[in-house]
Order: sequence, then C-alpha cells, then structure tokens
Amino acid sequence: MTHADTEPTTSFWAVIPAGGAGTRLWPLSRTREPKFLHDLTGAGRTLLQATVDRLLEPSAGQILVVTGAVHREAVLAQVPEVDPGDVLGEPSPRDSMAAIGLAAALLERRDPDAVMGSFAADHVIGDADEFNACVQRAVQAAREGWLVTLGITPTHPATGFGYVRLGQELAGQDRVHRVERFVEKPDLATATGYLADGVHLWNAGMFVVRPSVLLDLLGENDPEFAATLRRIAAEPALLPQLWPSLPKIALDHAVAEPAADAGRVAVVPAAFDWDDVGDFASLGGLLGVEEGAMTVLGDSDLVRGVDSSGLVIPVSGRTVAVIGLDDVVVVDTPDALLITTRDRAQDVKQVVTALAEAGRDDLL
Amino acid sequence: MTHADTEPTTSFWAVIPAGGAGTRLWPLSRTREPKFLHDLTGAGRTLLQATVDRLLEPSAGQILVVTGAVHREAVLAQVPEVDPGDVLGEPSPRDSMAAIGLAAALLERRDPDAVMGSFAADHVIGDADEFNACVQRAVQAAREGWLVTLGITPTHPATGFGYVRLGQELAGQDRVHRVERFVEKPDLATATGYLADGVHLWNAGMFVVRPSVLLDLLGENDPEFAATLRRIAAEPALLPQLWPSLPKIALDHAVAEPAADAGRVAVVPAAFDWDDVGDFASLGGLLGVEEGAMTVLGDSDLVRGVDSSGLVIPVSGRTVAVIGLDDVVVVDTPDALLITTRDRAQDVKQVVTALAEAGRDDLL
Repeated sequence: MTHADTEPTTSFWAVIPAGGAGTRLWPLSRTREPKFLHDLTGAGRTLLQATVDRLLEPSAGQILVVTGAVHREAVLAQVPEVDPGDVLGEPSPRDSMAAIGLAAALLERRDPDAVMGSFAADHVIGDADEFNACVQRAVQAAREGWLVTLGITPTHPATGFGYVRLGQELAGQDRVHRVERFVEKPDLATATGYLADGVHLWNAGMFVVRPSVLLDLLGENDPEFAATLRRIAAEPALLPQLWPSLPKIALDHAVAEPAADAGRVAVVPAAFDWDDVGDFASLGGLLGVEEGAMTVLGDSDLVRGVDSSGLVIPVSGRTVAVIGLDDVVVVDTPDALLITTRDRAQDVKQVVTALAEAGRDDLL
Repeated sequence: MTHADTEPTTSFWAVIPAGGAGTRLWPLSRTREPKFLHDLTGAGRTLLQATVDRLLEPSAGQILVVTGAVHREAVLAQVPEVDPGDVLGEPSPRDSMAAIGLAAALLERRDPDAVMGSFAADHVIGDADEFNACVQRAVQAAREGWLVTLGITPTHPATGFGYVRLGQELAGQDRVHRVERFVEKPDLATATGYLADGVHLWNAGMFVVRPSVLLDLLGENDPEFAATLRRIAAEPALLPQLWPSLPKIALDHAVAEPAADAGRVAVVPAAFDWDDVGDFASLGGLLGVEEGAMTVLGDSDLVRGVDSSGLVIPVSGRTVAVIGLDDVVVVDTPDALLITTRDRAQDVKQVVTALAEAGRDDLL
C-alpha cells in the first residue's frame, strides 16, 4: 500500500518505536506494562495513544509501530486506528537502531519516495500544532537527503539529556540548521552554559529521514547490519532467525553521531514543550507539581494529605494518607509500593536493580 | 465459682479491660480490630495475649476480660485459656468506670474476699517478674482496704501520660506509699521537673482493690452508678437494658482522683519497662528503632530501604520500597496506607477524624 500517488510531495510515515522499560518509573512502569502503555498525564490517553493522536495528521494515518512481541497485543488494543499489519513485533529488544532500521527497510520497499519520522511512544509533547509545523519543515529537508533531527529549545539546564550543537542555517530551507555535533549529557555547569549560549538544543531522539538515506548511512559504518535489515524486509519470514544477530546499538551512536561528523545531519529548532518522563521528578514537573502542594495522578479522593506536598499516584485503589512530608513521591500499586522524594527520583533504579538481583522478576 | 477457699489469703482476680480504638495507630488499629488484638512487638503474641500470659501466674488463672460485644468472638479466639463465661461483652463502649465497675460488681458476689487488679489489654510491660512482685505488694495493701495503683518510675519527661505524686510510705506495708494526688498530663518543662524530683510516677491506669471498696468509693460520689452496677451483677439479664444508662467516665475521674484527695489511695512504685503504645513514635521506641536504621515490624523481606530510616509495617504482603527518607513511618494495609514521620505520629488522629467526617467508616 502506498499513499504517495495521492499526495506525492508529502508522503510521510510516522514510525513509533514503543519500547523501553521506564525503570525509574517503577513500580508504575513494569516490564510487562511499560511506560508507554500508561496514562501519565491524567489526560485519559496513554503516552502511546497520545503519540499516535499527535501523528495522525502529519502522517495522514501512515503509522508504523515497532514494539516488543510481548507488548504487541496491548498496543493493538490501545491504538485500533493503526492497521494491525503496521504494528511490528520485535522478537526481542535490540535497541533503537534495529527497531527503526527494520521500519526503514520495510518502508523503503513499500513506499520508496516516502520520508519517515521516528518518534518515541513514551514522550510528552505540549503543543501539537508547533510539533506538526516542525515535522513539516523537517520533512522538506529530509526530502533533500538530510538526516533531520528535531532539537528542543532548552528551558532549564538539564543534565539528563544529550544536546545537539546548532550549526549554520541551511540555504533553501525554512529554519533548518546543520548539526555541528551531538553532545553527551553534560554536568550542571556545562548545561547552564548550554542554556545561555543559544546554540545547544536538547536531543529528543526524533529523526526524520528518507528510509534509504538512513539505511545507506548505517551501511557506511556497518554494511552487514544494513544488509540484514533489507534482507528481512524482502523476506519477513526470516525475521525470527536473523533478528538475534543484529547489533544492540542506539540509532544515535550507529548513525546520527558519525553522520553529524560528516556534515550530513540537520536540525529543526523546536520550541514546543517536551519531556521524556524519565523519572518521577520529571513526571512531577510535567503534572505541574508546585512547591508546598500535593498533586495526585489518579483519583484524588483516595489521597488524604496533612501538611504534605509532592506527588501521589494511587493505582491500587487504596486510601493513601500522608502526614508531614514534603516533596514526597508515593506510588501505590497492587503488589508494590514506592515511597521516595523528588530529589531522589533517580535512585528508583537502585531498587529495581536490587529486585532483579533478588530474582523478583514478578515485581519488575 | 470461687477459688478463694483453696488459697484464702491471696485470692486475686485479674480484670482486663480490652477496649479503646487506638486511633493514633491507624491504619493498623481499626474499630473492628483494635490495638489489643495485634502483635505490636513482633513477639508472636498479641497485646491481649501477652497481657493474659503475664497475669496467669499472679491470678492463678482467675482472669476476667471485659470487652466490646463486637470483639468478644475475637477475644475468645485469641485467649482460649480464659473461660468463655469470664469474657464479658459490653453492649456498647461506656468508658473504664463502667467496664471495671461491672467486673467489680460481679466479683463482689462471686468471690467476696478477693482482691481484683485491673490491667489494660493494650499495654506492653518489659519485666513480668518485677510486674508480678509489684502486683503482690499491691494486693497486700488492697486487702487492708486501700485503692492501690502501680506508679511507673519515669524514664523520660513524658508529656503524654498523667502522673501520680508520691506521699509517705505506708506503715506495715512493703514499699507502698500514700498517693498525695493525681496530676494531669504536664507540659515538657513540668515533666522535666517531675523526672528530676523523684516523687512523680507515671499513672499507668493499673488499679488493685477489693471489689467492694471500689464500688463503695464510687457510691460515695455517684450512688446510683454503684447501685446499678450491683443490680446488673445480681441480675445479669438486665445488662442490655441498664448498661446504656451508665455514665461514660474514666475510673480515674470517677473514683481514683476523689479517693486520693480523701487520702485513700496508695501506690506501689514500679520500675519495670512500661508503654501504652499510644502512637507509632511510641511503637518505634518500643521496637528499638535506632537513628539511621530501618526497623520492620513483620516480614522484613518485603521492605527495600535505600538511605532510609524509621519504621515500616508491611501488613498487606506487598513489597515496600523506601528511598531517601529519614525517621519515616510506613503502615501498609490491604485497604489503607499511612506515610508519616515519627515526629508527626500524633497527627495520625487528624486523618482518622477526617475519614470519620467523610463517612468512611469502612476504613476506621
């Protein structure tokens, strides 16, 4: 199926990698029910559903979801508007290059003139119109052969994200810049500098590109990887056999960073609100948790706060009483309870690691 | 039935009022399952069971439990060593004077030469031998007609207990003193003075007395109250009808305080460890919660602490992870969860009050 002939200049496929454990959102996010399957904003839509909603218009409904085989049924149930044939199940998790590369290889055959854009299923974006406008600009640059990323204008000196360093504006494009280089997660002083200098944007892991350009860039560094992806696309029955041989590597490292060094990556500066909801502090910020106030994600009738502030997520349906604790994070699920503070949100990972070491896979 | 003829000089009945909601121990202590039905020390015996255990020897098994009619079945199940006929069910809660007075009226008829001692079902006592020795001394004084209380030597300037002011030692008794007066709960400065002066003991609400002396003392202030109790004892079928007419008043106010003013109350200074387990801070102290350490009452395998200290009570069987919180109190039950700090333990009452006002009797 191709939509290219109906709208030849803008055929655009949205690829949604729906993976990632969301470890630091335990016990809300679990191996069996990861972050993207949850409504983390209280909007009545899960992160995956909101991602599909946001992409329906720019993609004209051409959406491909790549998810773990174990989550395929849950994904199908949540987004019935996506054709079941366009929900791909990875036999096992092999990081983003394999997932997005597989989508690229399939699209390269299915819709050779298309541009694809990859947008994680578990991010939150504030302004869908501004997002769409940025995607459209990225698509135009991608048609010219660029690997285009969307770079988010920083709003605080974040140390949890990588950055994109802005280069010269591209001629003949609408507010698209060359990427000088990708930068690793900085320390606070460096991040503060980035916030001030105006040429560093957050790397939100969003890439817009022609499928063949992506695969060719991959092939320059790892010809076998690209060839295997194309072989699977040509003969999907080989997927279970060939998939485990693919390298486990992020698209950033496999393609974007070397391509930026070769001057082949562009960036669309994007000013919409964006969050990867990495941990409960981030989630708290997203939900507008205020100093001195108690925010409830879920049924607020279940929560009784006395002189307390922070974030309570009552999932199990039990009454939660909090007395005299500030900036607390309480996540109450049927089999596990987390109590921490927003300051310590990063350390949730320690508990998950300890549970894994103790063989408590039932809780992960 | 009377045991007096087998051991005429020491016939002693232990009366155990098993009541009180233990509001500040919510959600562990509930209306339907109050404090005394719980094992709060991790010793494998509930507070009620430990109270009966402790009194079996001094009472030679002559134990009378007075509890709410709604708790009678639970009490019978927990203390099968007590004759079911000796577990009295109050039709409704009418405070300690009615409960202990009813026991006194029954014993006055059943064992006219006996001495009775009243000991709450929900206190924790450290040294059973020292307790027994004090009870024996109290019984000797009670035989002479005194209303005798056990006064606990203070170990800290407690503001949550009333005090007994020690008077002259009684001639012809073994370390028994006259009570100069009962003193209300003091402020911290006063309590600090009490701790230093050596003549103020904690009023633990333990009374040893001849039943007829107790009823006669009551009758001096409220003849009808005493007469009604004796009428019920003579004709137990009248209990449901007469009980609701009895005043709701504590024994301290109805009898002990006026009797002390009249010079008729004695005290046995007692040096054993004692705690009324009034709140989670008190429970933490009892369980030996140490600065910087995490104490678990229950299955410690359920609790994962990272840089945390305090008290966790995992009742529901769920895993509880605590990260970066000090002196925290977590009580995890199947339908309600409490999170607070030891400093704020007194304020648990606020939540219970709010739930009551919201009509959430199911949680109380």
